[in-house]
Amino acid sequence: MKKRLFTPGPTPVPENVMLSMAAPIIHHRNPEFMEILQRVHENLKYLFQTTQPVVVLSCSGTGGMESAISSIFREGDKVIAINAGKFGERWGELVRLYTGGCIEETVPWGRAIEPGRLKELLREHPDAKGVCLTHSETSTGTAADIRALSAVIREESDALVLVDGITAIGAHEFHFDDWGIDICITGSQKGLMMPPGLALIAVSERAQDVINAAEDSAKNFYLSLAKALKAHSGDDTPFTPAVSLVIGLDEALKMIRQEGIETTWARHESLAAACRAGCTALGMELFSTSPSFAVTPVWLPEGVEWNAFNKALKYSNGITVAAGQDDYKGKIFRISHLGYYDELDMLTIVGAMERALKEIGYCFPVGAGVTAVQQAFLGR
Amino acid sequence: MKKRLFTPGPTPVPENVMLSMAAPIIHHRNPEFMEILQRVHENLKYLFQTTQPVVVLSCSGTGGMESAISSIFREGDKVIAINAGKFGERWGELVRLYTGGCIEETVPWGRAIEPGRLKELLREHPDAKGVCLTHSETSTGTAADIRALSAVIREESDALVLVDGITAIGAHEFHFDDWGIDICITGSQKGLMMPPGLALIAVSERAQDVINAAEDSAKNFYLSLAKALKAHSGDDTPFTPAVSLVIGLDEALKMIRQEGIETTWARHESLAAACRAGCTALGMELFSTSPSFAVTPVWLPEGVEWNAFNKALKYSNGITVAAGQDDYKGKIFRISHLGYYDELDMLTIVGAMERALKEIGYCFPVGAGVTAVQQAFLGR
Repeated sequence: MKKRLFTPGPTPVPENVMLSMAAPIIHHRNPEFMEILQRVHENLKYLFQTTQPVVVLSCSGTGGMESAISSIFREGDKVIAINAGKFGERWGELVRLYTGGCIEETVPWGRAIEPGRLKELLREHPDAKGVCLTHSETSTGTAADIRALSAVIREESDALVLVDGITAIGAHEFHFDDWGIDICITGSQKGLMMPPGLALIAVSERAQDVINAAEDSAKNFYLSLAKALKAHSGDDTPFTPAVSLVIGLDEALKMIRQEGIETTWARHESLAAACRAGCTALGMELFSTSPSFAVTPVWLPEGVEWNAFNKALKYSNGITVAAGQDDYKGKIFRISHLGYYDELDMLTIVGAMERALKEIGYCFPVGAGVTAVQQAFLGR
Repeated sequence: MKKRLFTPGPTPVPENVMLSMAAPIIHHRNPEFMEILQRVHENLKYLFQTTQPVVVLSCSGTGGMESAISSIFREGDKVIAINAGKFGERWGELVRLYTGGCIEETVPWGRAIEPGRLKELLREHPDAKGVCLTHSETSTGTAADIRALSAVIREESDALVLVDGITAIGAHEFHFDDWGIDICITGSQKGLMMPPGLALIAVSERAQDVINAAEDSAKNFYLSLAKALKAHSGDDTPFTPAVSLVIGLDEALKMIRQEGIETTWARHESLAAACRAGCTALGMELFSTSPSFAVTPVWLPEGVEWNAFNKALKYSNGITVAAGQDDYKGKIFRISHLGYYDELDMLTIVGAMERALKEIGYCFPVGAGVTAVQQAFLGR
């Protein structure tokens, strides 16, 4: 059976990226590799829309988040973390680990923090040294208005703006410099269409100054952003990088460059809209009030049991989607369209859902979902 | 842009088959390779449903046809060839080359030879030494009733039954032994889901006797079936085989064995039916009166120009289908569902046709085609 992945990381890897990583390994101190890393560094700036360094760490996205927190903050620092889902919660855990506390603001799942509420928080805590935000919260398929949130922070305080862009970069419009972001992290297995293994972190001048000034007191080593930034200035890495992944990243970044980042963003927005239209046409309700363009969370319809639906998708149709997490396990599921997906893929996933729903006896007009997808792209 | 192939050879190659062929090369006189070839020989018997040898030649399907003709017939032999399309025509060319003449029966494109008409031909030519048939004529997407045709030949004459099974094997029910076939050829890049480069030929006992008795007067060398049969008896090949392709074939045959040949045939029949339903729902007329399960030929609708339609498919949607050939160039086109295709792929191809038709201004209710495909598989 053909297998098709619709999960928000790992995401499908294009054939040319896979092939580039299958080439014989080269040494990371070899000039050939330095040239690749230099090009990767350049293209990462384009991806994040910044003139500032974007470092490549050989770790997961969580490793990237820890790298930022451990390199910037110290015991006793006041940091605000917005928790609107599992990954926002992770910000809080990391902040508590490295500062001893956290101003954690909880937002109901499926909703995004309002800029007005953030303004209140900043006024309550004028001494906050940083605010940790999530651009696209993967667990809830919900996008926050990072541009507006960052503007509020810059207006109200000197706190650094840290953005978890792990499932947003490549899917949502993002301007690191213009929006005044200080830290933004993504992972390779997301919008970058790569296998897992790399975290990419953009670092503003303000953040660099803080990191470099506090380097000696940092409680990290492998994840040190100070070390990574120093090596970056010579287009190098402080430790042995995941060489074949960097080579694949080079290939993936070339693809994004060729598509053009604005087109990449627009594609994700349009795939997400078609996916929502297909789900709605099948009588399913959408979970998020501010839907992400990377992943669409959907309520399971009345009477549809998650295990049966998922089994029908996986074992009869070769399709993997993501389950709901925590309190929403068995209540919602999540369809990813992040990375290497096109419009025909939306037809495939909605068509596969029709097949699975039919198999488990859910009542709907066969073809309604795929027709809605076609109409979303083509009109009537 | 994602590329998706819907052509009747090459056909898409499964990932595990591609990976098996990317492994380091081994030597063809190595016991490891002999073991692979032995398993390939066994599984080819299963594919053709025969206890007779099926030899592996490193050449295209046409090379396989020439191998059969040049190994069996001699100058002056009378051979009947049925020409109902480009590949039937090729039988005639080969027969003329090796015998000096040919009893060629032409059948209008899109139709199959009737067993009754073949009976007449055999009565007119009781001294015919062979009859060359095409199971699925790729140029016209038309299937012949090989079982009935072979029965007529066996009843009426001693002529050998030669079947071009190049796009039929794997797609259409076929029983080499039970149906009394003497020669059947397929190519690797068809139902076998492989890249091009191998021809597979099943040879009956009767045909083996003729080939061996006439070996000394054969005007061939590399394509000698006599040499191939001798080597086959020791699970060997007479000349250096395309080693990596044989390794891939081993993998592909395992997949067919795992699916079960009856299931493989049924899958093709059902994909073809859904494809026809999708085309019809879009207002397109079917070309063949006896449609192949490997490839569906469709009339271009009134006012739809082939070049514009094909460009919209290829350059806007990454889809490759096959054009009409000869007199039907620009009038019909052909959609393949031969080999590594599943039901969701039919949704993709019909969805892509809707997209291309919409782009070039053809009028139809968006979603009608994909709905027909879903209904073909799921009911209403």
